[in-house]
Amino acid sequence: MEHRFSPSKYHTTLGPHEPVLYVSDGDTIVTTTVDAHGFDEHRKQVAPRGNPQTGPFYVNGAAPGDTLAVEINEIEPNRRYGFCGSSVAPNVVDPGYVRELPQAARAEWDVDVSANTATLVGPPSDLRELVLPLQPMLGCFGVAPTRGQAISTATSAEHGGNMDYRRFVAGTTAFFPVFEPGALFFLGDGHAVQGDGEIVGSGIEISMSVRVTLRILKGKTIIWPRAENNDWIMTFGNARPLDQATQHATTEMLRWLQSDYGLDSLGANLLLSQCVRYELGNIFDPAYTMVCKLNRKWLTE
Amino acid sequence: MEHRFSPSKYHTTLGPHEPVLYVSDGDTIVTTTVDAHGFDEHRKQVAPRGNPQTGPFYVNGAAPGDTLAVEINEIEPNRRYGFCGSSVAPNVVDPGYVRELPQAARAEWDVDVSANTATLVGPPSDLRELVLPLQPMLGCFGVAPTRGQAISTATSAEHGGNMDYRRFVAGTTAFFPVFEPGALFFLGDGHAVQGDGEIVGSGIEISMSVRVTLRILKGKTIIWPRAENNDWIMTFGNARPLDQATQHATTEMLRWLQSDYGLDSLGANLLLSQCVRYELGNIFDPAYTMVCKLNRKWLTE
Amino acid sequence: MEHRFSPSKYHTTLGPHEPVLYVSDGDTIVTTTVDAHGFDEHRKQVAPRGNPQTGPFYVNGAAPGDTLAVEINEIEPNRRYGFCGSSVAPNVVDPGYVRELPQAARAEWDVDVSANTATLVGPPSDLRELVLPLQPMLGCFGVAPTRGQAISTATSAEHGGNMDYRRFVAGTTAFFPVFEPGALFFLGDGHAVQGDGEIVGSGIEISMSVRVTLRILKGKTIIWPRAENNDWIMTFGNARPLDQATQHATTEMLRWLQSDYGLDSLGANLLLSQCVRYELGNIFDPAYTMVCKLNRKWLTE
Amino acid sequence: MEHRFSPSKYHTTLGPHEPVLYVSDGDTIVTTTVDAHGFDEHRKQVAPRGNPQTGPFYVNGAAPGDTLAVEINEIEPNRRYGFCGSSVAPNVVDPGYVRELPQAARAEWDVDVSANTATLVGPPSDLRELVLPLQPMLGCFGVAPTRGQAISTATSAEHGGNMDYRRFVAGTTAFFPVFEPGALFFLGDGHAVQGDGEIVGSGIEISMSVRVTLRILKGKTIIWPRAENNDWIMTFGNARPLDQATQHATTEMLRWLQSDYGLDSLGANLLLSQCVRYELGNIFDPAYTMVCKLNRKWLTE
Repeated sequence: MEHRFSPSKYHTTLGPHEPVLYVSDGDTIVTTTVDAHGFDEHRKQVAPRGNPQTGPFYVNGAAPGDTLAVEINEIEPNRRYGFCGSSVAPNVVDPGYVRELPQAARAEWDVDVSANTATLVGPPSDLRELVLPLQPMLGCFGVAPTRGQAISTATSAEHGGNMDYRRFVAGTTAFFPVFEPGALFFLGDGHAVQGDGEIVGSGIEISMSVRVTLRILKGKTIIWPRAENNDWIMTFGNARPLDQATQHATTEMLRWLQSDYGLDSLGANLLLSQCVRYELGNIFDPAYTMVCKLNRKWLTE
Repeated sequence: MEHRFSPSKYHTTLGPHEPVLYVSDGDTIVTTTVDAHGFDEHRKQVAPRGNPQTGPFYVNGAAPGDTLAVEINEIEPNRRYGFCGSSVAPNVVDPGYVRELPQAARAEWDVDVSANTATLVGPPSDLRELVLPLQPMLGCFGVAPTRGQAISTATSAEHGGNMDYRRFVAGTTAFFPVFEPGALFFLGDGHAVQGDGEIVGSGIEISMSVRVTLRILKGKTIIWPRAENNDWIMTFGNARPLDQATQHATTEMLRWLQSDYGLDSLGANLLLSQCVRYELGNIFDPAYTMVCKLNRKWLTE
Repeated sequence: MEHRFSPSKYHTTLGPHEPVLYVSDGDTIVTTTVDAHGFDEHRKQVAPRGNPQTGPFYVNGAAPGDTLAVEINEIEPNRRYGFCGSSVAPNVVDPGYVRELPQAARAEWDVDVSANTATLVGPPSDLRELVLPLQPMLGCFGVAPTRGQAISTATSAEHGGNMDYRRFVAGTTAFFPVFEPGALFFLGDGHAVQGDGEIVGSGIEISMSVRVTLRILKGKTIIWPRAENNDWIMTFGNARPLDQATQHATTEMLRWLQSDYGLDSLGANLLLSQCVRYELGNIFDPAYTMVCKLNRKWLTE
Repeated sequence: MEHRFSPSKYHTTLGPHEPVLYVSDGDTIVTTTVDAHGFDEHRKQVAPRGNPQTGPFYVNGAAPGDTLAVEINEIEPNRRYGFCGSSVAPNVVDPGYVRELPQAARAEWDVDVSANTATLVGPPSDLRELVLPLQPMLGCFGVAPTRGQAISTATSAEHGGNMDYRRFVAGTTAFFPVFEPGALFFLGDGHAVQGDGEIVGSGIEISMSVRVTLRILKGKTIIWPRAENNDWIMTFGNARPLDQATQHATTEMLRWLQSDYGLDSLGANLLLSQCVRYELGNIFDPAYTMVCKLNRKWLTE
């Protein structure tokens, strides 16, 4: 079943909030998200800053210990105006170089969905025209966290959240551990384009039209978020420093290979040894995100 | 001019050692490297363990403050036997998962240059046949460090060293800051294949035939290693934690964009913001290596 | 005014929960806390595991932007049975040493308030009798966090929480930024004794009788928790890695010296330079705690 | 036997350099050290900047696998002029606060050994008179490192080096692993006073008269530096981040308790659990130093 949902309120924490809609296993939701500062498709502010989320959606039958699969069917900017930071964040450069960074200013982009481009509009610099292909993605999405917590949409943890990983695009399915009845799924913080690491503290921030399909994997328990697309399986570690994020992601991948791909511990270790790939989700948010990846061509399901 | 050099001694530090050959700016060297444990193409141990290096090569005219460009023209395993670790290193998984790792054992590979494959031979696990395409690379190379130091080939720093980055393959040119007269170039620790992060503490370790061309960039001063290939420019940060390695690499990239690509500070920051890519060299050695990359298509030289 | 409050429910998050008592600026509360596993003075479990908190207490008049001062007047174990871990946590030793740690077991202590001692009862080891002087302290206390969050009592942040610092003893006044109306003060997780770093993941965990006095510093805004006793002023950074915790604490101390002790930036930096002291709160919890200290003898108020 | 040695050359690496003196097990050396910038008791520059070292001293009979014990008998500034940084280092504050730091300038101190005081002379700030009691210490000392390396005196590792720990004062005995025949002992970088962490990048830097006694512990093998004084035993971890330094120091302490103090693994873990103390050596140098301490009163030898 497909639900069309127009949000009227937004949350800046992922937590056990009142569901906005009850859906069933396998249902699809077509909805919209506002930008990181709470502005909608008309550039009207309808929510406070800080990655306000659409949702939560209650998935009937989802229970703690299950896994929620979120397939991103479609994601598309629903306006032309995008913005991002213009200075690499102080924590991403050498401490002694911080004073050399330009003053923070808002960079503005013209996002043209029909042309599939984002064009840098300003501020003026000696950078020539910069036109990037769109890769619309979800920066922040996930479920209500463990222990009844309500956790800021600025950060991320086992429940997902603000992972800011540029491959959360259409065609990707993300998996989240379920901690609350109904899972309580949230989404928001769309980026028209994002570099690795979100090093200026933002992608090209924009409001979005999104279509997702939610499925429950009953009795399937995971510890950290996972994802897959046609070519890759991926695990996510959200923590500081990056070393720890890498530990979480790698450990989760070793678990996955053993539980689902018929490998013993030695086999899983051997397979990862020379085939593993990593990508940097973000190195800006309170928790950094490291992604551990394995190409499906090495897997036998 | 092309020099053919057969090494008879090896070094396990990069330092101000006696040159084995004096070459000129633009000369090419054809030589061999032994594997990480000091075994040559006949599987005879001719050097101690620990990434023993061929060299150093003295480049006439190279002086502190210059940059040494090292083009990797060719690199090819010169025997069939390769080996690697079989267990992810304890520092790459969650501390609480260390006890779940398999006992360390040597994994063995049959490296077939004509077929361009490495085939896992053992130890036995339930991993099916694993046949990987070769990507022969240099794990450890660089120049004598600053301040007259002699630094172990286990680690890396501004002078290069054991960066264990899987894209140091043929067709890549690496750049190192020159700290000693003649630069004193070393190379070794070849890998037939390596995963991101070198998470088992080794690639497929093997002896190599290597052909490199050395050029001096007079008066060009860099702080951290850099590299380029047809598609990418890259900067390297070598440090722990990964956060700091990322800071070094990102800062060096900002410097490069401003010094060589006609950008002011704001332009360099804006360009990186949504176009930057990162790759994980290694997360095993005493210094981890993070690589900051930018695709040439965004650059105007 | 002094309030005697007997808790009947407990929270495992610090968040905007229903107040259990409304008090006024300057009031004193005499209450009890259960141990980290939710057991009370009769060793009866009355709350779930995970540092269940007494409270929250609503301080009339406290508003976001104010600071809440919490003077710990008295804190005393209210039973004899204490316990702690018996193995240093895996994240506190070298990754390669994790397999050498003893299997985790519960260590038990006899806590004798009249003798002011904690005596190790077991498990049996070749450690001779170990009798430690009591230093009863609060492991986890603080206020409701920013942005309406409800944050687990396992961790800590700007709002305080599970800092596990062994000098939060009677005679210490802690300061917390106020984020919610009424501040919403919580306390729990008492330790009869604790080593630096809480390296086995626990102090000597025990239920407590506690007496605290709450005061509002109207219009006084701080960013990180602070504290003072007769001899020292202290600031707290809660984060991973310890480097970042140290950055937060040091920055907060520089701010404090400038706002309250009549120093300009240079003066504050010069004073800290050779007089600063650091102590390690915890290196176990999801956020580590580093304490930056300055002896009052160097201060002129 | 007591040797009086007047240095005429200095080293800015610890490595396998030509010994300046051969001494026997148990001998005492009375010598001098220049300040961190290479200036002697007459404020004449006699060595390059960067913690130039007196030595190396060859201890007859010391062999790899032994331990060198260095008792600091006396250490006293031999001039009045001391200096330090005046701004907390950028890596010690929040990245976003770096721009708030004062511009780096040299702070000058009048060091009066007879009065046992260091008095801040300048630069002018609104800090009132600051007069500190002297605690003369060695910032950088140790032995030639493993593997024939020559490592900069800016940093530290298993061989000691620039640990910048303020309790390396007279009355302390430091222990270093021996990696080269004769151990090759170096010393320098004296501080009249130093705060925890060396957060401005320097203590009160000054030239020193030093008296040390060197002893060989034959067949005693340690991994990281250790130390002891009348009250404490201490182990040192030198690495980044502080987390890793803490891991090294804690692991070394667990080893020491088991090898020398008659404890099994469980006993060593239980003893540390509530009795351990940590101190921050430095959080400025390329390797940070964390010190793990245990009071002797808990030990049975």
